[in-house]
Amino acid sequence: MREMVGKIDLNCDLGESYGRFKLSLDEEVMKYISSANIACGFHAGDPVTIRRTVRLAVENNVEIGAHPGLPDLLGFGRRWIETTPEEIENYIIYQIGALEAFAKVERVKLLHVKPHGALYNKAADDERIAKAIIKAIKEYDENLILVGLANSKLIEISKKYDLRYAAEAFADRAYDKRGRLVSRKLPGAVITDPNHIVKRAVEIVEKGEVETINGEKIKLGEIHTICVHGDNPRAVEIAKILRKKLIEIGIEIKHMAEIVK
Amino acid sequence: MREMVGKIDLNCDLGESYGRFKLSLDEEVMKYISSANIACGFHAGDPVTIRRTVRLAVENNVEIGAHPGLPDLLGFGRRWIETTPEEIENYIIYQIGALEAFAKVERVKLLHVKPHGALYNKAADDERIAKAIIKAIKEYDENLILVGLANSKLIEISKKYDLRYAAEAFADRAYDKRGRLVSRKLPGAVITDPNHIVKRAVEIVEKGEVETINGEKIKLGEIHTICVHGDNPRAVEIAKILRKKLIEIGIEIKHMAEIVK
Amino acid sequence: MREMVGKIDLNCDLGESYGRFKLSLDEEVMKYISSANIACGFHAGDPVTIRRTVRLAVENNVEIGAHPGLPDLLGFGRRWIETTPEEIENYIIYQIGALEAFAKVERVKLLHVKPHGALYNKAADDERIAKAIIKAIKEYDENLILVGLANSKLIEISKKYDLRYAAEAFADRAYDKRGRLVSRKLPGAVITDPNHIVKRAVEIVEKGEVETINGEKIKLGEIHTICVHGDNPRAVEIAKILRKKLIEIGIEIKHMAEIVK
Amino acid sequence: MREMVGKIDLNCDLGESYGRFKLSLDEEVMKYISSANIACGFHAGDPVTIRRTVRLAVENNVEIGAHPGLPDLLGFGRRWIETTPEEIENYIIYQIGALEAFAKVERVKLLHVKPHGALYNKAADDERIAKAIIKAIKEYDENLILVGLANSKLIEISKKYDLRYAAEAFADRAYDKRGRLVSRKLPGAVITDPNHIVKRAVEIVEKGEVETINGEKIKLGEIHTICVHGDNPRAVEIAKILRKKLIEIGIEIKHMAEIVK
Repeated sequence: MREMVGKIDLNCDLGESYGRFKLSLDEEVMKYISSANIACGFHAGDPVTIRRTVRLAVENNVEIGAHPGLPDLLGFGRRWIETTPEEIENYIIYQIGALEAFAKVERVKLLHVKPHGALYNKAADDERIAKAIIKAIKEYDENLILVGLANSKLIEISKKYDLRYAAEAFADRAYDKRGRLVSRKLPGAVITDPNHIVKRAVEIVEKGEVETINGEKIKLGEIHTICVHGDNPRAVEIAKILRKKLIEIGIEIKHMAEIVK
Repeated sequence: MREMVGKIDLNCDLGESYGRFKLSLDEEVMKYISSANIACGFHAGDPVTIRRTVRLAVENNVEIGAHPGLPDLLGFGRRWIETTPEEIENYIIYQIGALEAFAKVERVKLLHVKPHGALYNKAADDERIAKAIIKAIKEYDENLILVGLANSKLIEISKKYDLRYAAEAFADRAYDKRGRLVSRKLPGAVITDPNHIVKRAVEIVEKGEVETINGEKIKLGEIHTICVHGDNPRAVEIAKILRKKLIEIGIEIKHMAEIVK
Repeated sequence: MREMVGKIDLNCDLGESYGRFKLSLDEEVMKYISSANIACGFHAGDPVTIRRTVRLAVENNVEIGAHPGLPDLLGFGRRWIETTPEEIENYIIYQIGALEAFAKVERVKLLHVKPHGALYNKAADDERIAKAIIKAIKEYDENLILVGLANSKLIEISKKYDLRYAAEAFADRAYDKRGRLVSRKLPGAVITDPNHIVKRAVEIVEKGEVETINGEKIKLGEIHTICVHGDNPRAVEIAKILRKKLIEIGIEIKHMAEIVK
Repeated sequence: MREMVGKIDLNCDLGESYGRFKLSLDEEVMKYISSANIACGFHAGDPVTIRRTVRLAVENNVEIGAHPGLPDLLGFGRRWIETTPEEIENYIIYQIGALEAFAKVERVKLLHVKPHGALYNKAADDERIAKAIIKAIKEYDENLILVGLANSKLIEISKKYDLRYAAEAFADRAYDKRGRLVSRKLPGAVITDPNHIVKRAVEIVEKGEVETINGEKIKLGEIHTICVHGDNPRAVEIAKILRKKLIEIGIEIKHMAEIVK
């Protein structure tokens, strides 16, 4: 085996079912990732689902994070809602607390927080929302790691406020030239071919760069974690070969807490 | 002033607004009580309301408890839903965690849990539901105090499982001869006359007994806390004179954590 | 081809997705049924899903009915909620109106109403709830057909109040000896083997009887419609072979409006 | 009494309670208005509340309209959600149908539709959203009257698509110089002094103009209806004196259906 030349975290959004409404293949994908971002009940997830997902993460030695979203089950938290920073701050606190309760009863630690959907994208550029998220986390537990889009305002402000952060990249989502994710409503926004995804992931990890939807290369800078989407029908296959490939080229798969400063 | 001859906690269900939908006179009633049971978002309450209510409690030196309910905003958690013990256990864990998050950011401790509405009444007689609630609390934090109806199954099983409990009595609700609360749908279920409420409270505290809706006296046994309803239009007035009267007859108003073993 | 010796309606519960949360294989199963019971937004379904499902029914020449449920998305309307008859009456009116709005914009008629889940089962035995449902339908449109469990109180009271009804049987659900459906929580409640389902359906249609979970035969009496569950992973296959088999033995598949008096 | 020199409709947003969460003083304000815009369950309102409100309108000889909003109970439909025109179109159809069901069972006609909150404000300037609303209404029932802000895109497009409309003005809300409502989050956005409100209403009706928050006069053009807010604590008093004053100066209070072409 090659010498390990780097480390990366593989994260996946999980626990996204709601009662009988099932989403994501949690059981299978858990085997190949290092971090689980667990939905907290606002855009997806319910108490029984959260419990089950936390247990599954524990069994698979996967670290646990909260994945708070906007209170919009119908829109799956993907539609921005004109909320105030005060609302966002408290929505985040509420959801982290709810999620951590299950970590507590299952005797594991909550290590990170990754905002979901429209909240994640909004925080990439909107300073007021980014600050509200950071404020919530710092108030709640200043040791938590905030996961945000590489090169985003959210990451920039996390540095400024001295909050630990993990810069995230997406191998299966198209980027625009500003380094933002192309809206899911546009054609080509989601990449589904496993080989293409793996190729992009390798480039992200090895060179810190990615090809945009228009074919240019852009720099993403330091990347601590790569997102593997659990709702892709081929998610399990992708996670599996991505993990294998990264190890082959000498990259260790580690939880972000072992990677970020 | 008379010598203090006993102690009682005065609790009130608060934080029951939901966005613009306002319920209860939190600001005013907070001055006269010792414990606040704060709605956690399932039957009432939302993150901004919870934050505000926790702050208000802190300012008024009132202790904080979680008031988890059934997921039924439309029915205000007052309609029993045919849930499983597993569902109840996880609904409770979720809500306690969400509430405690706000206690944490406001630097206070969460001290008790009081099930709300249909959950409270169901747990008074249904052993499976009572056990699910107790299990949730013990898993989450075995130092929390569970508030339940005096003489109920919930209290009986708390003793058996060695969970600290506070036996609660209602001065403003009619009792049946079994010591259960008369359904709010029946006439006479809610007592609104302040003098009558105070008279009943005194009898509860001094003699451990209450008059049923049919005029008989029944024994309630040890009582640690009396509930003052915040949604009564005269709630503030009632809380005020009740507190005054209890002090006059030599009863100290103390938080339940200083009363229960 | 054999001479047609009888008629039956095949109905299926459809439109049960909620935003991104997908349930049922609407597109495929639509080809084999004669009536679609469309979720109305309380236990499942949302406006965009309803629109799409109504269109799909129209394209497949399938008749449309409302499938109102309890306001419990998390429990998928399968948990009884202690509602009043007044609540049920108005929940039904609301949901029928919402559903009919889409029939109206797609220029088709709403022909039937089938209560969903816990409401359906409760109405099989609880006279107050059965009457509330019947009252709602008669107030709204007395020409609608009410679908209820064969031999249930709901059917009995429909006759008494002169409301058109369709007696329904389930080929894929276990019956108890009273002719009630065995709770989904119990083992053996749901039959998944396509051949077994078809065999039962034939017996129901030809003899008006069904085998209970304990192996006895019970009489179901007149049956106007058979339910094919859309959430069974093999739903499409089952609907297909069931339709074929029924036609082979001389049964015409007709919408219930052409079958009931 | 003076000769009647003009006509105006007085409308009020009603039926905004949600279960036990009470809003607006429906009973009292109903006596002084000519049109009720009834919440349809998305931002406020529930089936039992809708039923009660429709009955109340009938008893008071007040005409009924649907008041559809965004699916955001927590935000009371006042926060814009990044929805698609397809979503808006179907949300409107759903809510009109649900509301009309109650008009139907109470044997009255639904005459108008007024979008609520963020939907109303968005439609004042966003052509795609305005068109989605108009499309929904025309598909559902082309005889309905659409209520929109005077001089808004919504009114302009209604004319273009030949949909009947009622141009609305607000006597109790501040305007900016473009003739748009000042956001409720800004100071001075809501006018609460009854005399001031009446003075503004008279100016709106007599001259078709209103004073902006900066003290300039702007032309509103033709006005068919004035909104009286039911959630103002002095709503009843305001409605009462407004009605009286308008009659005194020779203005008839008529339902919008008798005013618009």
